[in-house]
Amino acid sequence: MFLATALLRKGLSSLVRTGDLTLVMPDGERLVFGDGTGDPVVARIADRGAVWAMLLDPDLRTGELFTDGRLIIETGNVYDFLSLILRHGDDSEPSPIVKAIDRLRTATQLWRQKNDASLSRRNVAHHYDLGDALYGLFLDPDWQYSCAYFEHPGQSLADAQLAKKRHIAAKLLLKPDHKVMDIGCGWGGMALYLARTAGVAEVLGVTLSDEQIGRAKARAEAAGLSTRARFALSDYRAVSETFDRIVSVGMFEHVGLGNYDQFFATCRARLAEDGVMLLHTIGCSDEPSVTNPWITKYIFPGGHLPSLSDMAKSAERSGLIVTDIEVLRLHYAETLRAWRDAFMARRDEAVRLFDERFCRMWEYYLAMSETAFRHEHVVVFQMQLARRQEDVPLTRDYIAAAEADLRKKEEATLA
Amino acid sequence: MFLATALLRKGLSSLVRTGDLTLVMPDGERLVFGDGTGDPVVARIADRGAVWAMLLDPDLRTGELFTDGRLIIETGNVYDFLSLILRHGDDSEPSPIVKAIDRLRTATQLWRQKNDASLSRRNVAHHYDLGDALYGLFLDPDWQYSCAYFEHPGQSLADAQLAKKRHIAAKLLLKPDHKVMDIGCGWGGMALYLARTAGVAEVLGVTLSDEQIGRAKARAEAAGLSTRARFALSDYRAVSETFDRIVSVGMFEHVGLGNYDQFFATCRARLAEDGVMLLHTIGCSDEPSVTNPWITKYIFPGGHLPSLSDMAKSAERSGLIVTDIEVLRLHYAETLRAWRDAFMARRDEAVRLFDERFCRMWEYYLAMSETAFRHEHVVVFQMQLARRQEDVPLTRDYIAAAEADLRKKEEATLA
Repeated sequence: MFLATALLRKGLSSLVRTGDLTLVMPDGERLVFGDGTGDPVVARIADRGAVWAMLLDPDLRTGELFTDGRLIIETGNVYDFLSLILRHGDDSEPSPIVKAIDRLRTATQLWRQKNDASLSRRNVAHHYDLGDALYGLFLDPDWQYSCAYFEHPGQSLADAQLAKKRHIAAKLLLKPDHKVMDIGCGWGGMALYLARTAGVAEVLGVTLSDEQIGRAKARAEAAGLSTRARFALSDYRAVSETFDRIVSVGMFEHVGLGNYDQFFATCRARLAEDGVMLLHTIGCSDEPSVTNPWITKYIFPGGHLPSLSDMAKSAERSGLIVTDIEVLRLHYAETLRAWRDAFMARRDEAVRLFDERFCRMWEYYLAMSETAFRHEHVVVFQMQLARRQEDVPLTRDYIAAAEADLRKKEEATLA
Repeated sequence: MFLATALLRKGLSSLVRTGDLTLVMPDGERLVFGDGTGDPVVARIADRGAVWAMLLDPDLRTGELFTDGRLIIETGNVYDFLSLILRHGDDSEPSPIVKAIDRLRTATQLWRQKNDASLSRRNVAHHYDLGDALYGLFLDPDWQYSCAYFEHPGQSLADAQLAKKRHIAAKLLLKPDHKVMDIGCGWGGMALYLARTAGVAEVLGVTLSDEQIGRAKARAEAAGLSTRARFALSDYRAVSETFDRIVSVGMFEHVGLGNYDQFFATCRARLAEDGVMLLHTIGCSDEPSVTNPWITKYIFPGGHLPSLSDMAKSAERSGLIVTDIEVLRLHYAETLRAWRDAFMARRDEAVRLFDERFCRMWEYYLAMSETAFRHEHVVVFQMQLARRQEDVPLTRDYIAAAEADLRKKEEATLA
């Protein structure tokens, strides 16, 4: 045990430079890290196997140990624990074992991301068909399961999600006669906003999730919008219509690196000659690297966080013109914090729906994702593309003007 | 001659689908292209060798033939001629000879772009030391030799160049105590705006052009700003100070593909921990391809138009975070048109300074560049980068607010 303790002490000493972290080892020894500032965090490792697991493959195993109850946070919570470890960035050289695991993972992740229609559907079901009851516990009332747009500090999640839909709609340069495709439409919130508030003629939302499609259709029906807002359980690659606009929010993360060319080429093929699209996706502003293996194993199989260079490369090959890129930083950290707060406030209900183990996994997922956006250069890209450069105004002033117009329409829709 | 005429007819028929182009062959035969709409353009090819040259290597040789007076525009001007040929995009398969030349060029261009300090200096002297008298003929009064920012149609060039400086300054998130480096400072206009109007404590402008540095220093002196706006004849790689902000406008085009990593790494090394930079450069939104060989031979030796994916790749490697990318489309086409109008209006003076041949070359350069921005997916990227994501506001609203503030300061500076 002496060796493992020494190695853990060495590794964490270089990472935890500020704050107050105590690690209680299986034999009761207490390792203390940081400069003693801030709220104390105490974590206990239950057994010797868990110590070695964290040492050899921290990216995968830390989440597993927390889920299994072998890494127990006794003071503070798992976000505080992860944040202390990750907030200064890791500029130390990883050990040869960790490097070798990473190399192997990069290769196998790419191989696993083939994501044809059938695998894509299984991947989607894994996460999005967990049951509406789960998502209802922590999402805003419109069920927006993607990064909100916080216009000012302290804005409520529901308000920031509305601002996100407005911001995206503004960038779509919509006209009343437009026909829009929403790729990865979730529970239909964006498509319904475009039909009801932005007032476009027709929206087709596609998703691969059975549960999402049912709810989206029911919402359209209830709102009397089912002729203008259609929803189809379909792979976006199977759609053959032409659209004036394409929007895709939080779906590109599931495409997989090997399919980026196909994604952009398909979008171009579906767009009218004067077409414009808005792609909203998580991405990394660092060098492309392996997507967190715990996430791809337990949360998003087949997923891959794109780098800007990889996205741009495929966009260039497609013949679409990139006309704007907004980099939303920290907005997703705030979104995830709001989700985690809501989830933890209703954790008892979640335990009844699933079990303790699932709830620990879900808490780890929300907490770890938040640290990625806060400390690890993970961002959200809003990439606007067009077939012709003259179809997007020459300055970005139109965005604020369209937002002001949509705000008025929101009030009229509510009244 | 029959074969060459037939090949030229075939090639141009697929390109010139609208408009009214007549090509007069050396033997007097008149080839007519287009649908007869718009103003007629008549071009004459003087000799048989010129016909073959245009067929075999149009990208390089068309400009040479125009410069040499062997391709003569008899009705319309050379911009009209190029625009008719290029405006529909070229989706035809190039001939095997043209493809082979392109492949060879890609390899040799990359090899020629090593651009160390000594070669960079020679490349810069080739263009920027042509004499202040030349640039004075067609630039705006502030000598901005880069893409203007047209806030509304019909805005004057001088006004749009002022708007460009304001737009860039707004994105730099300046504070009064800031120290700024301007990489490729030209004749000093941007640096002087930052010192005088934005009111920052210190600006260092670097350029490799003897003529530019002389004029920039004289302007700073005349404005009583020489303590706050310093200028140095220096390679940016030789600077060792630390800066709060870095701005670079129209210099990255000279860096060369092989040196992008070095460029971003150097900028990161020069930036303070809370540093922000704004990179303004021409780029292509298509797949990376060979930079026009006529341009790299006669106008910008060592130059290379970056693609967004190549820029993003090197930015990612540097550890800087891309925080915003504005894609300025068509602004440079308008800028080049204004420059060409001004140049042609004072062409007699240019002939006296140089000769007819130089003036034809310069007209071709300005006309061909305009067609590239109008028809060939060439754009300007304004890429904002930071060392930490929290040092740039979470929404882009600050840009308009800072522009409004700078407008007031401009009025105060004038008053």
